Amino acid sequence: MNVFLLAHTPEPDALVAAAAKICYRDITAGELLKGEEKNLSRELIADLFKSGHLSTFEHVSFTFAIDGLSRVASHQLVRHRLASFSQQSQRYVKMKYDPEAVIIPDAIKNNPEAEKIFTEAVKKSQEAYKNLIELGIAKEDARFILPHGHSTRLVLTMNARELHHFFSLRLCRRAQWEIHELARQMLALCREKAPVLFEKAGPACIFGKCNEARSCGRPYKNMEDLLFD
Amino acid sequence: MNVFLLAHTPEPDALVAAAAKICYRDITAGELLKGEEKNLSRELIADLFKSGHLSTFEHVSFTFAIDGLSRVASHQLVRHRLASFSQQSQRYVKMKYDPEAVIIPDAIKNNPEAEKIFTEAVKKSQEAYKNLIELGIAKEDARFILPHGHSTRLVLTMNARELHHFFSLRLCRRAQWEIHELARQMLALCREKAPVLFEKAGPACIFGKCNEARSCGRPYKNMEDLLFD
Amino acid sequence: MNVFLLAHTPEPDALVAAAAKICYRDITAGELLKGEEKNLSRELIADLFKSGHLSTFEHVSFTFAIDGLSRVASHQLVRHRLASFSQQSQRYVKMKYDPEAVIIPDAIKNNPEAEKIFTEAVKKSQEAYKNLIELGIAKEDARFILPHGHSTRLVLTMNARELHHFFSLRLCRRAQWEIHELARQMLALCREKAPVLFEKAGPACIFGKCNEARSCGRPYKNMEDLLFD
Amino acid sequence: MNVFLLAHTPEPDALVAAAAKICYRDITAGELLKGEEKNLSRELIADLFKSGHLSTFEHVSFTFAIDGLSRVASHQLVRHRLASFSQQSQRYVKMKYDPEAVIIPDAIKNNPEAEKIFTEAVKKSQEAYKNLIELGIAKEDARFILPHGHSTRLVLTMNARELHHFFSLRLCRRAQWEIHELARQMLALCREKAPVLFEKAGPACIFGKCNEARSCGRPYKNMEDLLFD
Repeated sequence: MNVFLLAHTPEPDALVAAAAKICYRDITAGELLKGEEKNLSRELIADLFKSGHLSTFEHVSFTFAIDGLSRVASHQLVRHRLASFSQQSQRYVKMKYDPEAVIIPDAIKNNPEAEKIFTEAVKKSQEAYKNLIELGIAKEDARFILPHGHSTRLVLTMNARELHHFFSLRLCRRAQWEIHELARQMLALCREKAPVLFEKAGPACIFGKCNEARSCGRPYKNMEDLLFD
Repeated sequence: MNVFLLAHTPEPDALVAAAAKICYRDITAGELLKGEEKNLSRELIADLFKSGHLSTFEHVSFTFAIDGLSRVASHQLVRHRLASFSQQSQRYVKMKYDPEAVIIPDAIKNNPEAEKIFTEAVKKSQEAYKNLIELGIAKEDARFILPHGHSTRLVLTMNARELHHFFSLRLCRRAQWEIHELARQMLALCREKAPVLFEKAGPACIFGKCNEARSCGRPYKNMEDLLFD
Repeated sequence: MNVFLLAHTPEPDALVAAAAKICYRDITAGELLKGEEKNLSRELIADLFKSGHLSTFEHVSFTFAIDGLSRVASHQLVRHRLASFSQQSQRYVKMKYDPEAVIIPDAIKNNPEAEKIFTEAVKKSQEAYKNLIELGIAKEDARFILPHGHSTRLVLTMNARELHHFFSLRLCRRAQWEIHELARQMLALCREKAPVLFEKAGPACIFGKCNEARSCGRPYKNMEDLLFD
Repeated sequence: MNVFLLAHTPEPDALVAAAAKICYRDITAGELLKGEEKNLSRELIADLFKSGHLSTFEHVSFTFAIDGLSRVASHQLVRHRLASFSQQSQRYVKMKYDPEAVIIPDAIKNNPEAEKIFTEAVKKSQEAYKNLIELGIAKEDARFILPHGHSTRLVLTMNARELHHFFSLRLCRRAQWEIHELARQMLALCREKAPVLFEKAGPACIFGKCNEARSCGRPYKNMEDLLFD
């Protein structure tokens, strides 16, 4: 999986602080543009975050380009409705006949017998796809035979509030491994550009509690644990 | 594909008319509850629809139970963000080893050679899934080898405004055939319960114009053409 | 303030349970329609709620007709974006020259001196509105002089997930008193129709903790405390 | 009214083109980052726009700081749900006792008799607010007496798709004059930064048709007409 930060709102921490100031202080719109008022306020943001007053976080958004994600994972990913997606079309783009075009879960890759079963079945599927295309079947119909683990590409935009929500769900150890890995890479990229907004992020355990009905029993100890585990 | 209407807001046409009345007339909330004021106003709704003032349509929603849709189509379907979905989990529910569990596009079904290629590849995939499960691979990883055309089930709720938007996109003849068929069945069910709200619905052609960059050249002539073609 | 339940999805508790079943069990769409399977599952819903897996709650929605709310409160109310509103238009509907058309906060009503200041100023505003209309000024411009506490009417629809979110914010004792009262009446109406879905609802304190940066120090003890305080 | 562009996604036109490429071409996420592929494609964007395939426009957002808007207009503005708002709080910020703090509609300003009625009533309201505060009434209650035309400040973020929708509604000549003026200034600012995305924008008439049930009869001739009229 490759995850790139394609674009983001400039100066994310400062912009959120500016938006918060307009709510609670007697400050004009013009003054917000000035350097001294646009200054970062780490305490202000920490206070907003702690109270759950996250609407100011929405003014900032991040756009990622993602490669090598399975359609299993992308089907989950696009369930996040407060986000924008542009995904590679299997109606218009012909899929590769290439074993590497299908994502192999680690649990399968690390089990030689399982891997053999998997890669042989992938080969059969891709041959079937190829043969169907050659018979004149449209790409949009032939793809029904491709494995659900087939790789896809997409461009994804989320604002910082929804990113926090995404991280709280998908960085849980019980999340599907692939979307968990995507979330981990996205958070690392966000932290580079908005260290205050994303100083802390992730599932409930990192904030000291677990909400899951069936906990995994291995809460994250700290951000390093979450990012580099 | 099976599509059932599981639930809907009672008296949909009347409720939309009531909501419109609160906007434009001097009428109290209590009066809205009375029969004579809750009466349907066909002209009022037609006027709202024609002007694109569709926010009153949002007060009414429809819930469908859907069976036998491919995950190809469900991946498209869940891209509609102003909707609510509950979908069968492939992490928690074990998939059937049954050829009928995979949707076969008509273009393949109607071509004996293509069908043979397709059903054999389906069999291979299902065998691989079965074998992986028996090797102890988790359902959520084994499913990577299942065909993308594998059947799924879901419960879907949309309000009447979003339904109109959905019908305008997915009843276009250029839409993917499966989501087109789903939309057709949904519209027929909506029209039974809300004949005024859905008196007219569908792609731009049914309203006399086509917006597509590459038109199909076969505009719908009328609602019968759209519903029973 | 008058709050009426204008409509709601029938059998709300059962519908949410049905949607949850399609996710986690091997059950067909058709079977969901049958009585025995549509039965309520109190434990299932409690489990969903506890884990924060609230998407199934979205299939159910409630529509309220509201009267006698100030435009101060309605301005806050319409900030809830996952909701549908139809509000009385001040562009099309002429406002009454009636002191009762303006909401008087209790803190003012209970202070004779303050009430006198308030009602005299209301009278001046309404006279100015009347005089401006008579001079030929359009309603949409004349209303600039009406008090912000002027009463409005609206029809509001929210799904059960967003209602829970609304109740968590607006039933906090630190919420503006008017929107707090609206939320209280809405919750009472919801509990009549969906006793399981709304068995517990409200701000964090009712679940045993407070998230506010500055707590009020008076957590709710139980639902009776919250509903009848 | 003062409208400032506080922030925006960098290189908006290029980012939308990149997102469209991932959908329809065989291009990797990494290649999107390279200059030559990130190049603007005016035809591509025009094609997307014409067909109504606007989801790629969502990757780009614009943040405005706005000053001197009435709460009449802000109440309308926040009805746009696909947007993010941070608005000056009348609960926490004390309002000015300053006639200029209330917006005067042109129709009133240009009619001496009307203006006199209006400004005298504003003065009365502000005196009442001041007196109530001095009596110990909380700001959040005292503000009920302030005119609805009282000025507010806010920070607003919308993505380019929603901006187009906003412009289509609010640049109609039948829109409320203040929100129309806001939209006009916002569009001018957007066009500086994203000339291709906003080459054409506005109500249906600028695209050659009018959807209103009661047309104003004065369609815009072109963008100059719309921006500088």
